[in-house]
Amino acid sequence: MDFLDEPFPDVGTYEDFHTIDWLREKSRDTDRHRKITSKSKESIWEFIKSLLDAWSGWVVMLLIGLLAGTLAGVIDLAVDWMTDLKEGVCLSAFWYSHEQCCWTSNETTFEDRDKCPLWQKWSELLLSQSEGASAYILNYLMYILWALLFAFLAVSLVRVFAPYACGSGIPEIKTILSGFIIRGYLGKWTLLIKTVTLVLVVSSGLSLGKEGPLVHVACCCGNFFSSLFSKYSKNEGKRREVLSAAAAAGVSVAFGAPIGGVLFSLEEVSYYFPLKTLWRSFFAALVAAFTLRSINPFGNSRLVLFYVEYHTPWRRKTTRLGKYPVLEVIVVTAITAIIAYPNPYTRQSTSELISELFNDCGALESSQLCDYINDPNMTRPVDDIPDRPAGVGVYTAMWQLALALIFKIVITIFTFGMKIPSGLFIPSMAVGAMAGRMVGIGVEQLAYHHHDWIIFRNWCRPGADCVTPGLYAMVGAAACLGGVTRMTVSLVVIMFELTGGLEYIVPLMAAAVTSKWVADAFGKEGIYEAHIHLNGYPFLDVKDEFTHRTLATDVMRPRRGEPPLSVLTQDSMTVEDVETLIKETDYNGFPVVVSRDSERLIGFAQRRELILAIKNARQRQEGIVSNSIMYFTEEPPELPANSPHPLKLRRILNLSPFTVTDHTPMETVVDIFRKLGLRQCLVTRSGRLLGIITKKDVLRHMAQMANQDPESIMFN
Amino acid sequence: MDFLDEPFPDVGTYEDFHTIDWLREKSRDTDRHRKITSKSKESIWEFIKSLLDAWSGWVVMLLIGLLAGTLAGVIDLAVDWMTDLKEGVCLSAFWYSHEQCCWTSNETTFEDRDKCPLWQKWSELLLSQSEGASAYILNYLMYILWALLFAFLAVSLVRVFAPYACGSGIPEIKTILSGFIIRGYLGKWTLLIKTVTLVLVVSSGLSLGKEGPLVHVACCCGNFFSSLFSKYSKNEGKRREVLSAAAAAGVSVAFGAPIGGVLFSLEEVSYYFPLKTLWRSFFAALVAAFTLRSINPFGNSRLVLFYVEYHTPWRRKTTRLGKYPVLEVIVVTAITAIIAYPNPYTRQSTSELISELFNDCGALESSQLCDYINDPNMTRPVDDIPDRPAGVGVYTAMWQLALALIFKIVITIFTFGMKIPSGLFIPSMAVGAMAGRMVGIGVEQLAYHHHDWIIFRNWCRPGADCVTPGLYAMVGAAACLGGVTRMTVSLVVIMFELTGGLEYIVPLMAAAVTSKWVADAFGKEGIYEAHIHLNGYPFLDVKDEFTHRTLATDVMRPRRGEPPLSVLTQDSMTVEDVETLIKETDYNGFPVVVSRDSERLIGFAQRRELILAIKNARQRQEGIVSNSIMYFTEEPPELPANSPHPLKLRRILNLSPFTVTDHTPMETVVDIFRKLGLRQCLVTRSGRLLGIITKKDVLRHMAQMANQDPESIMFN
Repeated sequence: MDFLDEPFPDVGTYEDFHTIDWLREKSRDTDRHRKITSKSKESIWEFIKSLLDAWSGWVVMLLIGLLAGTLAGVIDLAVDWMTDLKEGVCLSAFWYSHEQCCWTSNETTFEDRDKCPLWQKWSELLLSQSEGASAYILNYLMYILWALLFAFLAVSLVRVFAPYACGSGIPEIKTILSGFIIRGYLGKWTLLIKTVTLVLVVSSGLSLGKEGPLVHVACCCGNFFSSLFSKYSKNEGKRREVLSAAAAAGVSVAFGAPIGGVLFSLEEVSYYFPLKTLWRSFFAALVAAFTLRSINPFGNSRLVLFYVEYHTPWRRKTTRLGKYPVLEVIVVTAITAIIAYPNPYTRQSTSELISELFNDCGALESSQLCDYINDPNMTRPVDDIPDRPAGVGVYTAMWQLALALIFKIVITIFTFGMKIPSGLFIPSMAVGAMAGRMVGIGVEQLAYHHHDWIIFRNWCRPGADCVTPGLYAMVGAAACLGGVTRMTVSLVVIMFELTGGLEYIVPLMAAAVTSKWVADAFGKEGIYEAHIHLNGYPFLDVKDEFTHRTLATDVMRPRRGEPPLSVLTQDSMTVEDVETLIKETDYNGFPVVVSRDSERLIGFAQRRELILAIKNARQRQEGIVSNSIMYFTEEPPELPANSPHPLKLRRILNLSPFTVTDHTPMETVVDIFRKLGLRQCLVTRSGRLLGIITKKDVLRHMAQMANQDPESIMFN
Repeated sequence: MDFLDEPFPDVGTYEDFHTIDWLREKSRDTDRHRKITSKSKESIWEFIKSLLDAWSGWVVMLLIGLLAGTLAGVIDLAVDWMTDLKEGVCLSAFWYSHEQCCWTSNETTFEDRDKCPLWQKWSELLLSQSEGASAYILNYLMYILWALLFAFLAVSLVRVFAPYACGSGIPEIKTILSGFIIRGYLGKWTLLIKTVTLVLVVSSGLSLGKEGPLVHVACCCGNFFSSLFSKYSKNEGKRREVLSAAAAAGVSVAFGAPIGGVLFSLEEVSYYFPLKTLWRSFFAALVAAFTLRSINPFGNSRLVLFYVEYHTPWRRKTTRLGKYPVLEVIVVTAITAIIAYPNPYTRQSTSELISELFNDCGALESSQLCDYINDPNMTRPVDDIPDRPAGVGVYTAMWQLALALIFKIVITIFTFGMKIPSGLFIPSMAVGAMAGRMVGIGVEQLAYHHHDWIIFRNWCRPGADCVTPGLYAMVGAAACLGGVTRMTVSLVVIMFELTGGLEYIVPLMAAAVTSKWVADAFGKEGIYEAHIHLNGYPFLDVKDEFTHRTLATDVMRPRRGEPPLSVLTQDSMTVEDVETLIKETDYNGFPVVVSRDSERLIGFAQRRELILAIKNARQRQEGIVSNSIMYFTEEPPELPANSPHPLKLRRILNLSPFTVTDHTPMETVVDIFRKLGLRQCLVTRSGRLLGIITKKDVLRHMAQMANQDPESIMFN
């Protein structure tokens, strides 16, 4: 009797922090699929079941889209309310935001739409004063107090309930999608805590965004729904297809950009992205965007969720403050709140700021940035305003913007590494938009005062509207975000889905390409790859090119002088031998050879499955003792009469292990690892087993070669 | 002396109609790159050369963008002129189109912008009559005459100078990009003739489009420029990266949709599409779109190039007329011209038709489709017109549209297979837009007359503008095109880049997903894949999934009962033996084994390189005769004293041939072939060579399995 013909529990799963074997996952899915297909011919019921199975992919997408869209909508509403809570409260219903409060009030006119009697600032409520020094100070203090309360709550919740909920989550999701297992990273607790704390940290006014974390939240939804369908819950490869689509849905709701979301998932996050996943991502992103739009009562939330943190997290990996995460959050929040309140450009929410910077100055615009000196004789229609000299307000705004820019850059660096959910998109965009708007205003004033200069003479006549500072801000935002993340196509698509400005596609594309070139000159890694390297995840980046002349023989273990490779023989080792080998080594698996002399390769056995098989056999199969011979052949070997019952293990043997010859260039080996998602690969010469190369060996070798010859990078 | 240490000519090239070896091309590029990098440290000049080499990719993209944009602009202008030539001529300058002629004329008012004295219809010029039966007949005849002349010129040019210029070219480009060699398909003659004949056939009014052919033209440009840089001209793999980007530039100018172009290249055309190519495609598409926009003097050419032929070309592969390509073109042109002239919707150019169908009826719209009965009491502003009852014009238009729809469907089927350049996008879109507009008008009238029906009651009150027939046309066009080509994401992006309607993204996405579902239920193949299969190209589609339980051993040659595999031994065959083997077989290469007894695999030798090496050795190396022993080992074998000089061939031996074991599931083998772009793969069992699997074996097996079990398709 071959007990292994019945599958035993836990076979085919992976341990935490291990890499999955894509080829094996794929072939397991095919087996499952084949079983269902052949069964489906047996009865109508089985046929219906097989149809349900075939459509379950689309059902999961629908569910992910609905839940991700709903969560994003709820987060939006909650953030609106809590951000306003820092400044005041609605008397008619405390759960109304400023806008909702005044919107439902009948006494509000369009002119005074921001001031309605039902909405009371803290100073009005507590001191019955709306102006004056003491009112300002009370409002200032309340602002800081609420910010500290929100931040403290957030960091405590993360610390106690879900440590994985901190950060943007995109680097980890990238790593998970490449085949790494991080248990609990996409769990239900993470989902719940990240959603709640995201509201808290965004409301606290810290320099961070909700876009990256929303991608993480959507992936948690994806993980949750895939656990409901055995097709996805039992196959780590299929589960990653769902997660890729969920990431697309996340970006879709984060920016209201469904197409941009699909492209972001494709360009930036995913590892294995077949066309089928492209179509499904598309569907999930569509449903998510649609759900969000139906929930959001204001409907104008186009530029709401674009928020991401800024650069250089690794610099802070070793700061002393980092050891006290709660204190760190409190300190940074306090500094942020204290500095941000007096400057109008840092006090308002970052997405409002970006929206204001992008806007062109119409005739009705009341913003300080639009305080130009009007020509009293002007008779033009309101929409076509020529360039004008800047007024006092614009000059004030320029100073405030410059200060805000410096503050944003510095504080975002400090905010990014904290143990709270934090995104990287919106701060980058805000920095770029501020710089862009300032350059735009500068060029506009230059052109107005010096239109005889050569650079202006040909395209800018006096009295014409030739410089649009808002467009400079938009291009600046795109360029800055492109530099941080190195996105290109998805960046442009997100930007024009965000702004609705298809006609600006050419400047946006130029900005994306230029910022990529410039940023690549300083180093090839985007923020997410840098983060992955910093955390030491085994991530084989598709973008890196390997162009060194090394061969498989230079990388394989054992090296010269090392003890020989630990192998199993096909029919001569006892159970005890193998147990000793397992105890003494920590390899993930062992090659199986005909005999130690011939060293011809038969197959590969996984450590985990060997352990499980021996344990099960000792418990459930009679006659298996330490002296039992283990055999991987079809037929048991011929043994002396009184020898114990042998143990057949052919079922757990992988008969088609991946092999390369020792002369194979490492370039090809890297390509194979990347494209086929291997965990390990055996090295042979004319049929004899020589060694083994694991994914970690490959990564180590690539890092080594890159350090030896850093110049080669610039030639890719 | 080992003469093979010096490379000899033609090594490393491929024969026509053969498949390239992606892995080899890649490793050759790495070698070249490494040489340049190491040389670059020697002198400043070499350093500059290496920088130039590194940037040559971007330079090629720039050149492709410029040329593709220029050609598209010239084609646009020429088509404008020649299309108008069928109806009349400009007296001030015969090379002016109708619009240009009247635009430069001072006597034209806005009201009569279509009628200016300088533009003369043929009847006015020849008969001095502009109305009446005889004038109509003369114009009709001239229309047919010019159409026949253009079509005859086009088919003759294609036949005599460049047979490869016919069709849309996209299926062949897909095949070429997957690694197939078709010499001359992207040559200079094809470029020239396809550009010229494209103008002719589009002007002749045949039911075809210039979009697909423009992709072919752009790829010819890409091929031309890559032949100028040795980095691309000498490496078939690198050349294909350029061609992928050129395809993106082609779609970019075809539709004025740069992002859509990149996505089309990614989703529909390309095979190997690394992220580097994504960025370069993006750049090429940007330059091309920008160039086109600068050339086109009218600037409104958004919906200009979207034209593609309709379905079912294979049905006609065997018609008798197909044997007489010139006659066929003349007959189809005559039928098209005769039937098209009387119906206004078929007489106008297809892109004008689509544009009219997409348009909403404003108050100033003079189109027949907008002939509604106005309420005389209406006081609303002109932009917000409620639903109105249809007038006589709309009913006439409905009949004419119905006839035009039937005609378009039928004639497009016949046009597609002809030996002239012809595209498939615009006819599909036109068919979809006509059907969509008709449905839209139907729904609109239903809603107007029966707004108490349940389906209308909740969202359509009397006097509101609740149905937009133009949107129905747009969605219909997207759905029809999606059904023909099975594009999804790129389709939606192209559609909204084409129409500028970002707000219609949800209905467009829904249409794309639905049409893909419905079309896939009838068969998984899009038009291009069907065309590739029809032509029998060895194309391994990334979209097909292989889910059968077969193993490598079931597919490999030799099968049971067949003669053993033709192999070379490493040091015991003579030159004559090998020459005989080459003469008697037509295999592309031979595995090299240690000896016929042990059958342990050493490497793989390409047929072409064997032939070249033996020829070169016989000519240039002394002492090589038919009895010379050929050896692939490092050291020459020990030979009897008087034996002739042996021939060393280690240099042409591929020491890292790809191997799988006989137990490897075919699913994995298919995956490996697809992802690594292999030509062949050797099958071993415990180090012994058993057989070989070629790309054609894989394709044949896949076709066989699909026929055995057609049901399995629906479960993917």
